[in-house]
Amino acid sequence: MAVVYKRVALIGLGLIAGSMSLAMRRGRLAGEIVGYARSKETRDIAREISLVDRVEDTLAATVQDADLVVLCVPVGSMGAVMEEIAPHLKKGATVSDVGSVKKAVFEAILPALPQGVHFVGAHPMAGTEHSGPRSGFATLFDNRWCLIVAPEEADQSAVEKLAALWKGIGSNIEFMDPEHHDLVCAVVSHTPHLIAYTMVGVADDLRRVTDSEVIKFSAAGFRDFTRIAASDPTMWRDVFLTNKDATLEILGRFTEELFALQRAIRMGDGDQLFDYFTRTRAIRRGIIEAGQDTSAPDFGRVPVKPE
Amino acid sequence: MAVVYKRVALIGLGLIAGSMSLAMRRGRLAGEIVGYARSKETRDIAREISLVDRVEDTLAATVQDADLVVLCVPVGSMGAVMEEIAPHLKKGATVSDVGSVKKAVFEAILPALPQGVHFVGAHPMAGTEHSGPRSGFATLFDNRWCLIVAPEEADQSAVEKLAALWKGIGSNIEFMDPEHHDLVCAVVSHTPHLIAYTMVGVADDLRRVTDSEVIKFSAAGFRDFTRIAASDPTMWRDVFLTNKDATLEILGRFTEELFALQRAIRMGDGDQLFDYFTRTRAIRRGIIEAGQDTSAPDFGRVPVKPE
Repeated sequence: MAVVYKRVALIGLGLIAGSMSLAMRRGRLAGEIVGYARSKETRDIAREISLVDRVEDTLAATVQDADLVVLCVPVGSMGAVMEEIAPHLKKGATVSDVGSVKKAVFEAILPALPQGVHFVGAHPMAGTEHSGPRSGFATLFDNRWCLIVAPEEADQSAVEKLAALWKGIGSNIEFMDPEHHDLVCAVVSHTPHLIAYTMVGVADDLRRVTDSEVIKFSAAGFRDFTRIAASDPTMWRDVFLTNKDATLEILGRFTEELFALQRAIRMGDGDQLFDYFTRTRAIRRGIIEAGQDTSAPDFGRVPVKPE
Repeated sequence: MAVVYKRVALIGLGLIAGSMSLAMRRGRLAGEIVGYARSKETRDIAREISLVDRVEDTLAATVQDADLVVLCVPVGSMGAVMEEIAPHLKKGATVSDVGSVKKAVFEAILPALPQGVHFVGAHPMAGTEHSGPRSGFATLFDNRWCLIVAPEEADQSAVEKLAALWKGIGSNIEFMDPEHHDLVCAVVSHTPHLIAYTMVGVADDLRRVTDSEVIKFSAAGFRDFTRIAASDPTMWRDVFLTNKDATLEILGRFTEELFALQRAIRMGDGDQLFDYFTRTRAIRRGIIEAGQDTSAPDFGRVPVKPE
């Protein structure tokens, strides 16, 4: 693969930035990768493990002469970072982000964007329950989707270049407008996360069932909820605060449906439950056919070693 | 390991019975394993793949001279099966089950239990999203928990013998009374399943987000819900109908908590969200330390092959 950008600056050195750096190296997609994180500890770790080619201690030095600057910080911090880097951006550079919400990111970034600098958003739909500079790995984005979300007036060649980078990183790409992006994510990601957090909180609160019981017997369904709920709290706080409308809409639909099923349980309406559970099964098959998961038993997990 | 029961009869030949049979063979825990399923197709497959040592075409022949009879049928069918096998049970035999609910199973089985026959319930907390006679595997129960739930008046040696079988099969065991069992399962299993089913149903109903979008972008959290929701509809219908009280109680707690978080989103209360998400993270760590899951990134899944 050919170099797509001569110099890439990554702001924020967590799971996504780290994995991007390793994937860009694997594909030789960037001439040089420069990185910055607000915390000194993170910068020190990044240097120690050579997560990027060069770690800088200021935002200004990080974005200097960069052809692509990617904001890999929580959605709520993007506006402040953008204002600080704006005066130091190179003419013709592209600013991008990896936020899970797009309308709010556009509102935070576009007003501060200097003349002659492009903005093209991206949202790689991949992750693990881990975070921090040591959590990245080069294959994180392989065969996962990356949504490219550009303003209507965006420069077409800047959009294509960013799409080429993400293809080189290993993703499948798709283009979306910010409103639709936020609705899709509310359905497939944001609301499921909120629900998982809630269920884990309920289990923790219940005095008659001990935490140790919850933990011991988690294999029966609860385990998948805890995995989702183990994600980074700051990131998720910002997601819900900034994708408020779509999340509240989907939550409303969810509670309606849940109440209907709750009523069926109370009334003993077995047919309604059976029909509902049969219908939802079909979606699972679609996901396996789409290659987004494996059908291996026990969810394809590595067996846990016996004591 | 030594033989625990000379003859074991398995009624219902799905994931759990099949895995029990293969695990009992692996551990040489049973002299002979006899099996029965109501559907001729299932019996034919079981014969073809030698899932058990002998497949019988009637319940009476299956339980004849059996030292242990395990009901591996949906909870709603246990009463009818018990009535049919009762006259054919050997004096001194033990009847057991693998149902996910225990109070309702006790009510279904105990009234039909003949004099001189023991009953000891069991609930292996393990499973996959697959079902049917071809879905079993010998390691399903390794290092998972099996809850042994016996009536207060149960014969102690019958309880210990069943516990020994499940240890030989690979499980860790714990004893519980039926009421507490049903509450614990409502928290760690039944309510999470209902919620997952509901979320998958909402995604399917929403007209502005296509099914293909839901499927394509599922890696972002929704995938874990679909996996849970892919489980057997009959089994789950019966679970909710028979563990109604505990499930409705936990659902009530869940919606209370969900409304509190929903309100925090609407009000923009970031601190409340952050604190909640931070607290739930700790439970995840407990599960990994308890050996019930792996901390490998991407949830320890086998990577999906690129196209």
